[in-house]
Amino acid sequence: MAANSFGDFLKIHSFGESHGRALGVVIDGLPAGLEFREDLLLSALDRRRPGQNALVSGRQEGDRPEILSGLYQNKSLGTPLTVVVWNQDARSQDYAAIAESPRAGHADDVWKTKFGHSDPRGGGRSSGRETLSRVIAGAFARMLVERLQPSTQILSFAEQIGPHSLTAEEFQKAAEMPPEKIDAFPARFPSSTHSAAVEQLLLKAKVDGKSYGGKASLLVKSAPSGLGRPVFHKLKSDFAQAFMSIGATISFELGDGLEALDQEGSQFHRQGEKPYGGIRGGISTGEDILLRVGFKPTSSVMDVAKKGRHDPCIVPRALPVMEAMAWLVLANQILARRLDRI
Amino acid sequence: MAANSFGDFLKIHSFGESHGRALGVVIDGLPAGLEFREDLLLSALDRRRPGQNALVSGRQEGDRPEILSGLYQNKSLGTPLTVVVWNQDARSQDYAAIAESPRAGHADDVWKTKFGHSDPRGGGRSSGRETLSRVIAGAFARMLVERLQPSTQILSFAEQIGPHSLTAEEFQKAAEMPPEKIDAFPARFPSSTHSAAVEQLLLKAKVDGKSYGGKASLLVKSAPSGLGRPVFHKLKSDFAQAFMSIGATISFELGDGLEALDQEGSQFHRQGEKPYGGIRGGISTGEDILLRVGFKPTSSVMDVAKKGRHDPCIVPRALPVMEAMAWLVLANQILARRLDRI
Amino acid sequence: MAANSFGDFLKIHSFGESHGRALGVVIDGLPAGLEFREDLLLSALDRRRPGQNALVSGRQEGDRPEILSGLYQNKSLGTPLTVVVWNQDARSQDYAAIAESPRAGHADDVWKTKFGHSDPRGGGRSSGRETLSRVIAGAFARMLVERLQPSTQILSFAEQIGPHSLTAEEFQKAAEMPPEKIDAFPARFPSSTHSAAVEQLLLKAKVDGKSYGGKASLLVKSAPSGLGRPVFHKLKSDFAQAFMSIGATISFELGDGLEALDQEGSQFHRQGEKPYGGIRGGISTGEDILLRVGFKPTSSVMDVAKKGRHDPCIVPRALPVMEAMAWLVLANQILARRLDRI
Amino acid sequence: MAANSFGDFLKIHSFGESHGRALGVVIDGLPAGLEFREDLLLSALDRRRPGQNALVSGRQEGDRPEILSGLYQNKSLGTPLTVVVWNQDARSQDYAAIAESPRAGHADDVWKTKFGHSDPRGGGRSSGRETLSRVIAGAFARMLVERLQPSTQILSFAEQIGPHSLTAEEFQKAAEMPPEKIDAFPARFPSSTHSAAVEQLLLKAKVDGKSYGGKASLLVKSAPSGLGRPVFHKLKSDFAQAFMSIGATISFELGDGLEALDQEGSQFHRQGEKPYGGIRGGISTGEDILLRVGFKPTSSVMDVAKKGRHDPCIVPRALPVMEAMAWLVLANQILARRLDRI
Repeated sequence: MAANSFGDFLKIHSFGESHGRALGVVIDGLPAGLEFREDLLLSALDRRRPGQNALVSGRQEGDRPEILSGLYQNKSLGTPLTVVVWNQDARSQDYAAIAESPRAGHADDVWKTKFGHSDPRGGGRSSGRETLSRVIAGAFARMLVERLQPSTQILSFAEQIGPHSLTAEEFQKAAEMPPEKIDAFPARFPSSTHSAAVEQLLLKAKVDGKSYGGKASLLVKSAPSGLGRPVFHKLKSDFAQAFMSIGATISFELGDGLEALDQEGSQFHRQGEKPYGGIRGGISTGEDILLRVGFKPTSSVMDVAKKGRHDPCIVPRALPVMEAMAWLVLANQILARRLDRI
Repeated sequence: MAANSFGDFLKIHSFGESHGRALGVVIDGLPAGLEFREDLLLSALDRRRPGQNALVSGRQEGDRPEILSGLYQNKSLGTPLTVVVWNQDARSQDYAAIAESPRAGHADDVWKTKFGHSDPRGGGRSSGRETLSRVIAGAFARMLVERLQPSTQILSFAEQIGPHSLTAEEFQKAAEMPPEKIDAFPARFPSSTHSAAVEQLLLKAKVDGKSYGGKASLLVKSAPSGLGRPVFHKLKSDFAQAFMSIGATISFELGDGLEALDQEGSQFHRQGEKPYGGIRGGISTGEDILLRVGFKPTSSVMDVAKKGRHDPCIVPRALPVMEAMAWLVLANQILARRLDRI
Repeated sequence: MAANSFGDFLKIHSFGESHGRALGVVIDGLPAGLEFREDLLLSALDRRRPGQNALVSGRQEGDRPEILSGLYQNKSLGTPLTVVVWNQDARSQDYAAIAESPRAGHADDVWKTKFGHSDPRGGGRSSGRETLSRVIAGAFARMLVERLQPSTQILSFAEQIGPHSLTAEEFQKAAEMPPEKIDAFPARFPSSTHSAAVEQLLLKAKVDGKSYGGKASLLVKSAPSGLGRPVFHKLKSDFAQAFMSIGATISFELGDGLEALDQEGSQFHRQGEKPYGGIRGGISTGEDILLRVGFKPTSSVMDVAKKGRHDPCIVPRALPVMEAMAWLVLANQILARRLDRI
Repeated sequence: MAANSFGDFLKIHSFGESHGRALGVVIDGLPAGLEFREDLLLSALDRRRPGQNALVSGRQEGDRPEILSGLYQNKSLGTPLTVVVWNQDARSQDYAAIAESPRAGHADDVWKTKFGHSDPRGGGRSSGRETLSRVIAGAFARMLVERLQPSTQILSFAEQIGPHSLTAEEFQKAAEMPPEKIDAFPARFPSSTHSAAVEQLLLKAKVDGKSYGGKASLLVKSAPSGLGRPVFHKLKSDFAQAFMSIGATISFELGDGLEALDQEGSQFHRQGEKPYGGIRGGISTGEDILLRVGFKPTSSVMDVAKKGRHDPCIVPRALPVMEAMAWLVLANQILARRLDRI
């Protein structure tokens, strides 16, 4: 029941199976008069696209978005904005064996248990390709946020890839990099010291059919204050739901999160030392916000037939999806603020 | 906008300020014919109540729930079930100084920023007392789940209190304990070896006006399979939203979570070794599910006037609230399954 | 499932059975900083209250609303505002016979069929007493609308009582009357010529245990333009849902409605002659809006034991409920406009 | 904000402007395993399509639906089912003059007022072409209802066209006709005596650029009992919202509606004489249900350039749209019943 919708104000309705006719999204609630920025849409899709280097799945999708409704003269109409992407490189034969031998750790069998009838081709709707709809919607959410709160920025990078983690110093440097610079690092892991080792690890894993977990960091910079709706739509609660709805996620942290659990309170709350503590009482304070998400090792690695085309670590591909969800959360909370006061 | 509602099928509407006239909850969507179990409601409130020992805040509330609607002859009518609890021990003079000096780390000032007009008495609706509504609603959700899926159980305990953590062996023993036994441990931290040290730490913190973070574990045992609605209401996503809507939470983990991030995939997915991996593709598999939530040190510790009455660690008090939210998530997903198939 | 909620922005959650402990409403979405006007709340309840003259049901309720949450220093907090009214004059013995002999035309038996378990005391939640929650919520909606759109007014009156209808001239005069003057007419039927006849008809019907249908008119004066959200929340669609959710309603008309069906279009659309055509394309134009609702004869008339206490025509009592629903529709659509444009 | 969605359980998301790239609908909540019946989809579209005879607008659309997602091996997957229809015969030049001279009675100018930015081409989203999405969704709702409640049927016909109305006898005969027979009458007005006169009236109106109002009747036969969710989703309330969301509607009646207003109650409630009174207390009784909807004269008649292609009376075209909305209401209420009882 409407479990494919996200958001209360800028509401998105996602649809499509990975090997069906098309995937897409209906975006309802975009205020009228918003200028469409094709650059933001295409760059979001480009950054999501697998295959840009040897470390991510080799499938060349070349997905071209087609806008079906909601725009006129390059501006939003206040009507539902719909975008589809056609499935071209279906290659469902790759997945023919799935019915007999469900992939370990994959969703195929649980979908079958739940619905009785499911689509075995490439995971159907449980495929990672579903995130296309999110990335498209996120680009429109970003257009909205950039129009209403131009100073707000989102930056994400891999903080951990399997056994390799950024040092505290590398983390601080990464937090100040422009996005393009992070994209230039192998696996979007912005380490000057471990970069080569990570690349080696993943290239070898690709050959060996192995995979690794990891952790992503996402920074919301110059977020407006006052975002978050008590008590069930606290800002951290919305981010948690958004990120944990992405496949393969297994943890969510706010700020320093788990590292701070053993601290004594007066230390924890000392002002001026926590640069990323920007949520209090569930509401943004105006300071930068740090969100971290852990991902388990990808599951399709066990499928021998797919060796060489699988993702040895999902984190680099997940970053643009996390960014999209973060833009959607921000857009909803920013619109919600219009109703806070009389 | 309706940010005080939780759930799609068993929908709860929470209300009340900590020092207003009353708090309560409207529960809409309870199917007709469910027998009311007063024992479950009262025991949930008893377990939530602070003051049962020296380690939690000394306020003796003695909250008595009053049912206003929705029951007839001890059975649910299919109409909204409403419960209120009156605020008796208001003691708002304790909080008189707040307007001038907002408590460090507390929500008072961000609420003021957001709404322009806010209730300074004891945190108003940002107070921990708001969780009363959740615990009441959770008790009804539990009645529903126990009626429809009698074998399902929920167990929670403190896994970490400040610098003290359960050992792997203690964790496994705790996971098999009856709830009463866990409640008997100081701070609900079921350790035979660290128990006394934790008690000492917290008693001293109470005197010194200090506080500690910690981590809670919650186990869903014998959960039915097939729970979780792709793609935005995956079971893990709903749990994450539910738990991260609780005050002071800063992290959420599914299963072994962060400890598994550096593992290689074939190891991670080896069957038979992960007893708590019961969610796949966002859908429950029927295996036990382990959920972990981190809490930051409580903020009111800085308020000198409150020394001796504050909670030196929020985890013990948060456990019944986490259980309530978990019952609500399960109840919603169990009802949702009625619509999965034709 | 949440069928006791109304509204998307100013969302109300209604609860309570007619002979249970209490009835009430939670209002979520009221912006912070709205001044509470007790006069509007009490006058709305007074106008709803039966028993003010011989033509409406004799039960003297003297309902006193109690505000449980959402206000501080007489202003809304942006948190859920909750109001309850206690059931005092329960008199459920009057209804003892219902289980054996369901009232013709009444909802008792269909509720039993639907839910399996129902409350026979005075209709439980299918009783007209449920409208208390609506009238209370409507008063707060009115406070909001009067604050944001001070010129907007709502006026309602009985246009038809059984065989008696206002003349066109009487209708025009009524449309200009102050509300108090309409309340002073028997059965709120503002006719200088038929007033006495209507009074006689209803007094006799009360004695004889008879009842009559009728029609109500409601005018929205100086409504702001631009209200209505295409395509499923057109303003007329929201009004229709709101009014047809009231018991005993059997028809809804916009403007001249049915009288215009046989007209040719160029006549119908001639400008300047239709004073109440204020909705076009589902959106308000700024002109006055006329809404008409038909009510069937009340059903409890067949219950011999209730003769003398029943309502011989429901229309006079229904007017304040219609007004409440109209304020709620307006408040929601006015808040919605904040999101129309970038 | 999500005003383009309808339904709580079988939720539809409608999109598309009349002269944009495409229109369509996402249907979320269709249980898995429902067999797709192409015949029902195509016949619904055929019956909606204008141009099948001289009495309806001459535009030959030949709309072919394309299913993008949600089906596999001809059965629903439990995922969102998406259907689009491409706009081919755009002909927007016809509407070039609109910006300068908005059509009397049409929505163009109010949309402009509301959103600031609107699509002048053929009414954009305020065009009648928007109903394509409804008819498609309605066909799937019908598949669901026919699978779950095979005996339930829906029949609709024109009861009044301008000055011509069916006699009581003709009405009773029409109520027993198969749908094909009604479609064979000019303007779907099943009168043996007035049929020719109505045809003449409309043909002349087409030439003269005139238009007429009218009234549609819709019968729900063998509806299951127990449909309707108190208090705000009573069955009559849902039907009212659904029908009044259709363009040009100005009235809604349940059963004999307005004709019964002057009746005395004991007459009105006499059993056995009202064959179409199948809703009581807002809940279906299992008896047949009669719903009537009035339509104002179409507005585009004043546009001189469109003479000869306009609809002289909207009722015949509106019938398939009403049927679609009725199937959607039934499907939602039938699914909702799964949650009524424990």
